[in-house]
Amino acid sequence: MKSEKFMFSDHIEWEVVGEGVRRRILGYDDNLMQVAVEFQQGAVGEVHKHIHSQTCYVVSGVFEFTVGHETHIVKAGDGLYMEPDIPHGVKCIESGILLDSFSPVRLDFLKK
Amino acid sequence: MKSEKFMFSDHIEWEVVGEGVRRRILGYDDNLMQVAVEFQQGAVGEVHKHIHSQTCYVVSGVFEFTVGHETHIVKAGDGLYMEPDIPHGVKCIESGILLDSFSPVRLDFLKK
Repeated sequence: MKSEKFMFSDHIEWEVVGEGVRRRILGYDDNLMQVAVEFQQGAVGEVHKHIHSQTCYVVSGVFEFTVGHETHIVKAGDGLYMEPDIPHGVKCIESGILLDSFSPVRLDFLKK
Repeated sequence: MKSEKFMFSDHIEWEVVGEGVRRRILGYDDNLMQVAVEFQQGAVGEVHKHIHSQTCYVVSGVFEFTVGHETHIVKAGDGLYMEPDIPHGVKCIESGILLDSFSPVRLDFLKK
Protein backbone atom coordinates (compact mmCIF):
# COMPACT_ATOMS: atom_id res chain seq x y z
CA MET A 1 0.00 0.00 0.00
CA LYS A 2 1.35 3.42 -0.90
CA SER A 3 0.23 6.84 -2.03
CA GLU A 4 1.30 8.84 -5.04
CA LYS A 5 4.79 10.34 -4.87
CA PHE A 6 3.54 13.90 -5.30
CA MET A 7 0.56 15.02 -3.23
CA PHE A 8 -0.36 18.48 -4.52
CA SER A 9 -2.49 20.25 -1.94
CA ASP A 10 -4.48 22.09 -4.62
CA HIS A 11 -5.80 18.71 -5.79
CA ILE A 12 -6.70 17.22 -2.40
CA GLU A 13 -10.01 17.93 -0.64
CA TRP A 14 -10.04 18.74 3.06
CA GLU A 15 -12.02 16.24 5.13
CA VAL A 16 -13.96 17.78 8.02
CA VAL A 17 -13.23 15.70 11.13
CA GLY A 18 -14.63 17.91 13.90
CA GLU A 19 -15.94 21.38 14.65
CA GLY A 20 -13.32 23.74 13.24
CA VAL A 21 -11.00 20.85 12.34
CA ARG A 22 -10.24 19.38 8.92
CA ARG A 23 -7.45 17.27 7.52
CA ARG A 24 -5.85 16.01 4.38
CA ILE A 25 -3.62 12.99 3.92
CA LEU A 26 -0.39 13.93 2.14
CA GLY A 27 1.49 10.67 1.65
CA TYR A 28 1.77 7.15 3.09
CA ASP A 29 2.79 3.56 2.89
CA ASP A 30 2.28 0.71 5.35
CA ASN A 31 4.87 2.11 7.76
CA LEU A 32 4.43 5.86 7.55
CA MET A 33 1.69 8.46 6.99
CA GLN A 34 1.65 12.25 7.09
CA VAL A 35 -1.52 14.26 7.58
CA ALA A 36 -2.04 18.04 7.61
CA VAL A 37 -4.68 19.12 10.14
CA GLU A 38 -6.12 22.64 10.08
CA PHE A 39 -7.63 24.09 13.27
CA GLN A 40 -9.78 27.16 13.71
CA GLN A 41 -9.22 29.21 16.85
CA GLY A 42 -10.94 27.51 19.79
CA ALA A 43 -11.17 24.10 18.10
CA VAL A 44 -10.23 21.08 20.19
CA GLY A 45 -8.66 17.70 19.51
CA GLU A 46 -10.01 15.69 22.44
CA VAL A 47 -7.59 13.61 24.48
CA HIS A 48 -7.21 10.21 22.84
CA LYS A 49 -4.61 7.51 22.30
CA HIS A 50 -3.63 4.94 19.68
CA ILE A 51 -1.05 2.25 19.08
CA HIS A 52 0.86 4.35 16.53
CA SER A 53 4.00 6.31 17.22
CA GLN A 54 3.27 9.93 16.33
CA THR A 55 5.19 13.11 15.70
CA CYS A 56 3.62 16.53 15.22
CA TYR A 57 5.08 19.71 13.74
CA VAL A 58 3.46 23.11 14.24
CA VAL A 59 3.31 24.61 10.75
CA SER A 60 1.44 27.73 11.86
CA GLY A 61 -0.70 29.00 14.72
CA VAL A 62 -0.48 28.53 18.48
CA PHE A 63 -1.69 25.43 20.35
CA GLU A 64 -1.98 24.18 23.92
CA PHE A 65 -0.82 20.58 23.81
CA THR A 66 -1.13 17.89 26.44
CA VAL A 67 0.98 14.73 26.09
CA GLY A 68 0.82 12.35 29.03
CA HIS A 69 1.00 14.53 32.14
CA GLU A 70 2.69 17.50 30.43
CA THR A 71 0.88 20.54 29.02
CA HIS A 72 2.64 23.34 27.13
CA ILE A 73 1.98 26.07 24.61
CA VAL A 74 3.62 25.40 21.24
CA LYS A 75 4.00 27.60 18.18
CA ALA A 76 5.17 27.48 14.58
CA GLY A 77 8.41 25.52 14.28
CA ASP A 78 7.98 23.45 17.44
CA GLY A 79 7.74 19.65 17.36
CA LEU A 80 6.17 16.95 19.51
CA TYR A 81 6.64 13.23 19.94
CA MET A 82 3.87 10.95 21.24
CA GLU A 83 4.81 7.40 22.11
CA PRO A 84 2.34 4.55 21.37
CA ASP A 85 -0.71 4.53 23.67
CA ILE A 86 0.11 7.81 25.41
CA PRO A 87 -2.97 10.02 25.88
CA HIS A 88 -2.68 13.35 24.04
CA GLY A 89 -4.93 16.23 23.10
CA VAL A 90 -4.78 19.79 21.80
CA LYS A 91 -6.60 23.12 22.00
CA CYS A 92 -6.12 25.70 19.27
CA ILE A 93 -5.23 29.13 20.70
CA GLU A 94 -4.57 30.81 17.33
CA SER A 95 -5.78 29.25 14.06
CA GLY A 96 -3.16 27.18 12.27
CA ILE A 97 -1.98 23.91 10.81
CA LEU A 98 -0.41 20.86 12.46
CA LEU A 99 1.49 18.25 10.44
CA ASP A 100 0.97 14.84 12.08
CA SER A 101 3.06 11.82 11.15
CA PHE A 102 2.32 8.26 12.20
CA SER A 103 4.02 4.86 12.18
CA PRO A 104 2.51 2.54 11.13
CA VAL A 105 -0.08 3.98 8.72
CA ARG A 106 -3.44 5.08 10.20
CA LEU A 107 -5.65 2.54 8.45
CA ASP A 108 -8.67 4.09 10.18
CA PHE A 109 -8.02 7.33 8.25
CA LEU A 110 -7.96 5.51 4.91
CA LYS A 111 -11.14 3.55 5.50
CA LYS A 112 -13.22 6.72 5.66
CA MET B 1 14.97 4.99 22.17
CA LYS B 2 12.82 8.10 22.15
CA SER B 3 13.06 11.87 22.27
CA GLU B 4 11.44 14.31 24.66
CA LYS B 5 7.70 14.82 24.20
CA PHE B 6 8.04 18.56 23.59
CA MET B 7 10.74 19.74 21.19
CA PHE B 8 10.76 23.55 21.44
CA SER B 9 12.49 24.99 18.40
CA ASP B 10 13.88 27.91 20.41
CA HIS B 11 15.95 25.40 22.42
CA ILE B 12 17.29 23.30 19.53
CA GLU B 13 20.36 24.28 17.54
CA TRP B 14 20.34 24.03 13.76
CA GLU B 15 22.93 21.60 12.38
CA VAL B 16 24.55 22.71 9.12
CA VAL B 17 24.45 19.75 6.73
CA GLY B 18 25.39 21.39 3.42
CA GLU B 19 25.83 24.72 1.70
CA GLY B 20 22.68 26.68 2.50
CA VAL B 21 21.09 23.68 4.23
CA ARG B 22 20.59 23.07 7.95
CA ARG B 23 18.34 20.81 9.95
CA ARG B 24 16.99 20.12 13.38
CA ILE B 25 15.53 16.90 14.74
CA LEU B 26 12.09 17.48 16.29
CA GLY B 27 11.04 14.13 17.72
CA TYR B 28 11.67 10.40 17.30
CA ASP B 29 11.52 6.86 18.54
CA ASP B 30 12.78 3.65 16.92
CA ASN B 31 10.02 3.67 14.31
CA LEU B 32 9.54 7.34 13.47
CA MET B 33 11.55 10.55 13.21
CA GLN B 34 10.69 14.08 12.07
CA VAL B 35 13.30 16.58 10.94
CA ALA B 36 12.91 20.21 9.84
CA VAL B 37 15.30 21.15 7.03
CA GLU B 38 15.84 24.79 6.07
CA PHE B 39 17.08 25.63 2.55
CA GLN B 40 18.44 28.88 1.24
CA GLN B 41 17.51 29.79 -2.33
CA GLY B 42 19.69 27.81 -4.74
CA ALA B 43 20.67 25.15 -2.19
CA VAL B 44 20.56 21.55 -3.34
CA GLY B 45 19.81 18.21 -1.71
CA GLU B 46 21.71 15.87 -4.03
CA VAL B 47 19.93 12.80 -5.35
CA HIS B 48 20.32 9.99 -2.81
CA LYS B 49 18.42 6.99 -1.47
CA HIS B 50 17.99 5.08 1.77
CA ILE B 51 16.10 2.11 3.19
CA HIS B 52 13.67 4.31 5.13
CA SER B 53 10.17 5.20 4.05
CA GLN B 54 9.99 9.00 3.88
CA THR B 55 7.36 11.67 3.68
CA CYS B 56 8.03 15.36 3.16
CA TYR B 57 5.80 18.39 3.75
CA VAL B 58 6.59 21.80 2.28
CA VAL B 59 6.24 24.19 5.22
CA SER B 60 7.36 27.24 3.22
CA GLY B 61 9.22 28.15 0.06
CA VAL B 62 9.25 26.64 -3.42
CA PHE B 63 11.22 23.52 -4.40
CA GLU B 64 11.94 21.44 -7.51
CA PHE B 65 11.67 17.84 -6.37
CA THR B 66 12.71 14.70 -8.18
CA VAL B 67 11.40 11.35 -6.91
CA GLY B 68 12.23 8.36 -9.08
CA HIS B 69 11.64 9.49 -12.65
CA GLU B 70 9.23 12.32 -11.76
CA THR B 71 10.20 15.97 -11.31
CA HIS B 72 7.76 18.67 -10.20
CA ILE B 73 7.65 22.07 -8.56
CA VAL B 74 6.12 21.97 -5.08
CA LYS B 75 5.12 24.77 -2.73
CA ALA B 76 3.89 25.37 0.82
CA GLY B 77 1.20 22.85 1.75
CA ASP B 78 2.23 20.15 -0.73
CA GLY B 79 3.37 16.70 0.37
CA LEU B 80 5.60 13.97 -1.02
CA TYR B 81 6.06 10.27 -0.39
CA MET B 82 9.34 8.46 -1.11
CA GLU B 83 9.30 4.68 -0.92
CA PRO B 84 12.34 2.84 0.46
CA ASP B 85 15.39 2.91 -1.83
CA ILE B 86 13.87 5.30 -4.37
CA PRO B 87 16.35 7.96 -5.55
CA HIS B 88 15.20 11.49 -4.68
CA GLY B 89 16.67 14.98 -4.64
CA VAL B 90 15.64 18.60 -4.36
CA LYS B 91 16.61 22.09 -5.53
CA CYS B 92 15.43 25.13 -3.60
CA ILE B 93 13.78 27.72 -5.88
CA GLU B 94 12.63 30.06 -3.08
CA SER B 95 14.05 29.77 0.46
CA GLY B 96 11.95 27.71 2.82
CA ILE B 97 11.55 24.78 5.17
CA LEU B 98 10.81 21.12 4.48
CA LEU B 99 9.53 18.79 7.20
CA ASP B 100 10.91 15.30 6.54
CA SER B 101 9.57 12.23 8.34
CA PHE B 102 11.17 8.80 8.27
CA SER B 103 10.33 5.24 9.28
CA PRO B 104 12.32 3.72 10.87
CA VAL B 105 14.40 6.34 12.69
CA ARG B 106 17.45 7.77 10.88
CA LEU B 107 20.15 6.41 13.16
CA ASP B 108 22.76 8.10 10.97
CA PHE B 109 21.28 11.48 11.96
CA LEU B 110 21.54 10.71 15.67
CA LYS B 111 25.14 9.48 15.54
CA LYS B 112 26.39 12.86 14.36
